[in-house]
Amino acid sequence: MGLLESIRGPQDLRVLSGEELLTLSGEIRRFLVEQVSRTGGHLGPNLGTVELTLALHRVFDSPRDRIVWDTGHQAYVHKIVTGRHDFSGLRQRGGLSGYPCGAESEHDIVENSHASTALSYADGLAKGYRLRGVTDRKVVAVIGDGALTGGMAWEALNNIAAAKDLPLVIVVNDNGRSYAPTIGGLADHLATLRTTRGYERFLDWSKRLLQPTPVVYDTLHAIKTGVKDLVAPQGMFEDLGLKYLGPIDGHDIEAVETALRQAAAFDGPVLVHCLTRKGNGYPHAENDKADCFHAVRVMDPTTGRPTTAAGRSWTSVFGAELVTLAERRPEIVGITAAMLGPTGLDAFAERFPERVFDVGIAEQHAVTSAAGLAMAGLRPVVAVYATFLNRAFDQVLMDVALHGCPVVFVLDRAGVTGDDGPSHNGMWDVAMLQAVPGLRIAAPRDARTLREELREALRVTGGPAVVRFPKGAVGPDIPAVDEADGMAVLRRDAGRDVLVLSVGAMAGLALGVAARIGEEGFGVTVVDPRWVKPVNAAIPDMARRYRLVVTVEDGLRAGGFGSAVAQELRDAGVGTPVADFGIPRRFLQHGKRAEVLAECGLTVEDVSAAVLHRLAGKNRRLAAPTHVSPWLAKLIADPRLAGRARQVLASNGYSGHRGVGDQTH
Amino acid sequence: MGLLESIRGPQDLRVLSGEELLTLSGEIRRFLVEQVSRTGGHLGPNLGTVELTLALHRVFDSPRDRIVWDTGHQAYVHKIVTGRHDFSGLRQRGGLSGYPCGAESEHDIVENSHASTALSYADGLAKGYRLRGVTDRKVVAVIGDGALTGGMAWEALNNIAAAKDLPLVIVVNDNGRSYAPTIGGLADHLATLRTTRGYERFLDWSKRLLQPTPVVYDTLHAIKTGVKDLVAPQGMFEDLGLKYLGPIDGHDIEAVETALRQAAAFDGPVLVHCLTRKGNGYPHAENDKADCFHAVRVMDPTTGRPTTAAGRSWTSVFGAELVTLAERRPEIVGITAAMLGPTGLDAFAERFPERVFDVGIAEQHAVTSAAGLAMAGLRPVVAVYATFLNRAFDQVLMDVALHGCPVVFVLDRAGVTGDDGPSHNGMWDVAMLQAVPGLRIAAPRDARTLREELREALRVTGGPAVVRFPKGAVGPDIPAVDEADGMAVLRRDAGRDVLVLSVGAMAGLALGVAARIGEEGFGVTVVDPRWVKPVNAAIPDMARRYRLVVTVEDGLRAGGFGSAVAQELRDAGVGTPVADFGIPRRFLQHGKRAEVLAECGLTVEDVSAAVLHRLAGKNRRLAAPTHVSPWLAKLIADPRLAGRARQVLASNGYSGHRGVGDQTH
Repeated sequence: MGLLESIRGPQDLRVLSGEELLTLSGEIRRFLVEQVSRTGGHLGPNLGTVELTLALHRVFDSPRDRIVWDTGHQAYVHKIVTGRHDFSGLRQRGGLSGYPCGAESEHDIVENSHASTALSYADGLAKGYRLRGVTDRKVVAVIGDGALTGGMAWEALNNIAAAKDLPLVIVVNDNGRSYAPTIGGLADHLATLRTTRGYERFLDWSKRLLQPTPVVYDTLHAIKTGVKDLVAPQGMFEDLGLKYLGPIDGHDIEAVETALRQAAAFDGPVLVHCLTRKGNGYPHAENDKADCFHAVRVMDPTTGRPTTAAGRSWTSVFGAELVTLAERRPEIVGITAAMLGPTGLDAFAERFPERVFDVGIAEQHAVTSAAGLAMAGLRPVVAVYATFLNRAFDQVLMDVALHGCPVVFVLDRAGVTGDDGPSHNGMWDVAMLQAVPGLRIAAPRDARTLREELREALRVTGGPAVVRFPKGAVGPDIPAVDEADGMAVLRRDAGRDVLVLSVGAMAGLALGVAARIGEEGFGVTVVDPRWVKPVNAAIPDMARRYRLVVTVEDGLRAGGFGSAVAQELRDAGVGTPVADFGIPRRFLQHGKRAEVLAECGLTVEDVSAAVLHRLAGKNRRLAAPTHVSPWLAKLIADPRLAGRARQVLASNGYSGHRGVGDQTH
Repeated sequence: MGLLESIRGPQDLRVLSGEELLTLSGEIRRFLVEQVSRTGGHLGPNLGTVELTLALHRVFDSPRDRIVWDTGHQAYVHKIVTGRHDFSGLRQRGGLSGYPCGAESEHDIVENSHASTALSYADGLAKGYRLRGVTDRKVVAVIGDGALTGGMAWEALNNIAAAKDLPLVIVVNDNGRSYAPTIGGLADHLATLRTTRGYERFLDWSKRLLQPTPVVYDTLHAIKTGVKDLVAPQGMFEDLGLKYLGPIDGHDIEAVETALRQAAAFDGPVLVHCLTRKGNGYPHAENDKADCFHAVRVMDPTTGRPTTAAGRSWTSVFGAELVTLAERRPEIVGITAAMLGPTGLDAFAERFPERVFDVGIAEQHAVTSAAGLAMAGLRPVVAVYATFLNRAFDQVLMDVALHGCPVVFVLDRAGVTGDDGPSHNGMWDVAMLQAVPGLRIAAPRDARTLREELREALRVTGGPAVVRFPKGAVGPDIPAVDEADGMAVLRRDAGRDVLVLSVGAMAGLALGVAARIGEEGFGVTVVDPRWVKPVNAAIPDMARRYRLVVTVEDGLRAGGFGSAVAQELRDAGVGTPVADFGIPRRFLQHGKRAEVLAECGLTVEDVSAAVLHRLAGKNRRLAAPTHVSPWLAKLIADPRLAGRARQVLASNGYSGHRGVGDQTH
């Protein structure tokens, strides 16, 4: 691939001619399509930022200068030009992260890929450097037009605009979309700016004036006719007091560079408005109506079609069921924060376009406007990724729950999602929402119970209800053998040694554990409580009859379901010990869901071993297993571990000890 | 008070003449000053909204029309004119709430008094009514200019502006302040609007055209010269696509009414920009530089001075210590979300004006810009009320903790605050923050430990630290009798029956409980762990040596400190039972801090009784106490309660049972 191979760092970009840059852009696009086709990943956003990234790294001197990427899925090109050419393991365990990642490169700053944060980081960085007297580090934030719809970005703009003498460059990467087209008054305003004469004028003018050294603003201001407007503030950014530069063709490296150099030389905050096309240069992406190949699975690069069938997803089961319910119940409305397709609301939107509200990347408004809709007599369903609900904790607590609004939250991608890394795991929801009075949480274990529990959630009155389920394909239905106090009994042995309470999709694991310890002669009952908050009132009395209660969840152990069950048992004076399995309190690096769960000790083998250990008593030391959760490691290290458990563990190949570091605080 | 007494509801306002309205305004102001002087409460904001409120209730027909008050401390006048004249128990148990309250009146909609939510509620209400075909209910949101700096408000504006045909009136109550003067580019823009010619022109014109019936917009648009501009969109609101009407003198009832009638008749969203003066009509408030008497204690209305000394507050101890530390450490910077004074940062700001950042009512930006400041090598201290940190949970988790930024959060008003009611209790922090990897939490018990632990927090590296303390006066220092593994031992008996772990300011209660159960012959050790997250590693081994571990915290029981201790004991295989005392999962109504704590069973008597019950065994029934937490009620109802505990309880006057309803889910 000629030129691309020679780029080991940003400095190599600065010696290239205009023609070479064009060649390189082409090579990078081919590289992106080929590589992402093999692994899956974000494609459209990166195809749209090739030239913008090259220009950024030619004008600014990263890592001395700080380039802060908002919503890092647009940073693949940045990775390539900062020395990361091996995309073979993209988003896979041990391979490149799908987002900027400090551990990979000193060029990466922000790992959190929740949208709209970059301006606040940049504000802090720029103010910090100024206060410390550091004058040779420039700060640049790159933010999409979609991310500007998020409230955080507004808060930052309001502060940045007031810091008249703070050198800070804001690059708005305006492709008119987040996943879907950007919505709202802001989007309309950006569209207006896009079509102003300024654009053409700027192109002409920049061709004429193009120069390698930064233009001093005072000089620019002195130039008459037309030019002054170009560097003058404009529209709503002007009203806020921000200098505005643009719009610029974001695929014209020369034009972008010129604008960036001017912005960099200005002694205050400047907004550079770049127009880009999501999926640019790859026709399948450019022409994709849904989301311009925002993120793709493994696919054939020639056809742009996935090479494997995805299987029926949890998302699609929800989406279809909501349409069914909404046919009969006109009061049901849907709300999404810029993720109509990814959350499965697209089918609903197609059938009932007037009953769906896409609010932009604005989870706070999504939640509180849902409270308003509920107060007006409707039944709002807020469909959102579990990790993004963290953005609206206060609104769920104070705006919805305090007012007893019957809003239904459908949390997709709950639990471990895996390949998107730490900021996308939906592992915080159950622990965070434990705090919310009156809020109920259902965790379906399969497609059938998802449909059932969604219906139940839409019958809850007097407060909010949550239905949470994981990412990916939903497996076959897991039948109940019995029902008890509204809970599903999935297995019931005659003997009453262990009561396993499993949360949602962990039912399969729970049954595996039950089978394993059942083989050892223990009597096991497995119960899916279906609604995990509040803890079913029948659980304490049920637990009283067993020797050990085991809880299994794909959420945080700290303050999670198991913790809540243990508290209920304490309050009820039930002395049965509780062994609670879940995700340790740490940020989980990217990998396949199963790999990440295994790292947390959430496998049939690890959980079984730990349970058997508890059951067998603690009388003799045992070599620790090879892959264990910290929780299990502690147990295994116990000198009083019983011989029987030792045998079981040994038969599973446990011998040495390689603990997984747990950040316990 | 003549006229005021005759106002039993909004309908009584509509028959008044202009002169009578003037008289009434004066009466209301006198009433506010007199009443709030006696009880304490919000004064400045309400003095500023007298005329605005009268106009709103004359033009709109509440409760059919929906008036949504943002940050409800400006709604006292609304309370008065909707039939609530008895302010004698304002913010006291059983008396009027300090905010809108659905249980008080059908005119009240939003009880949450976190800022910036009203536009989202209004958006939902208006869209809900439209969808349901309800055409006779208008929706009005009243929001301050300060609240517009919050991201949520931006998210809502962006959505409302795009709904061109959605009838919705947004009243911006612009007094140029939140607690302190409003900051940022928006404030500058509002200031610009304030001084436009439009204001004078509008006044002239409205005098001429004033008419009781709504003006049809089409007609208005047809009127030439000048008038068109008045109803045209303007400035940044124009850019977003919002119609703008104003600025209006918010103390001129006639002018406000005219504008509101026009806005109400318009078939789309309109922003009505009203200029008001915080504290208007009460010179002491008008002239107060700090916050125009935003909220006052009991005071002499003649002098405007508090009649009692406040006592040294936790806030002031923090504020003074931060200045001391910052003298030696130039890297310390302070961040506040529009609450410089209330959080005690004012002393710091006076000493180091360049090292403090007031970001407006923008907690999300406060937290993430602090991450940026930390990345630039500074030591940011974010000072915020505990309840408002809920707004930035995602930012604490993903922007600060994931990146290991050493940001210090100082949470004032943690635990039960009491008189501000459910939305202001800082009872969620410890439970919510349990989820955050790498974050440490200190809970000082007195002034000395507040200073110590703040210093320790500012030495934490590699991640965030929190220092949390309650509202109000700090008591005398509580000495330690010993130190153990970094924890303070406050009492240590020879016998090892009970280990009490107390969180922060609950140390006094814990010692009281220890004294009480000590009198009964039990050996009690009381430990203040000082840092409550992570759970001190020495606690499990310590706990192993006792018969019972008791935890006492002024935060949520669900997922709180006690819950974390219990989990650590489970993980360490320590079988000592845990009795965890804290706040039940429900919204707490306003009252004095002590009253609210008592309702939660957090008194020496209740906790002692419950502990003695546990210690004595459970062999005989006992009459239940009169005022008990649900937790205790359950215990007391236990038929196996021991005779000894019964005697103890009886000696405390327990006989009948009047449980406090707990919302257990």
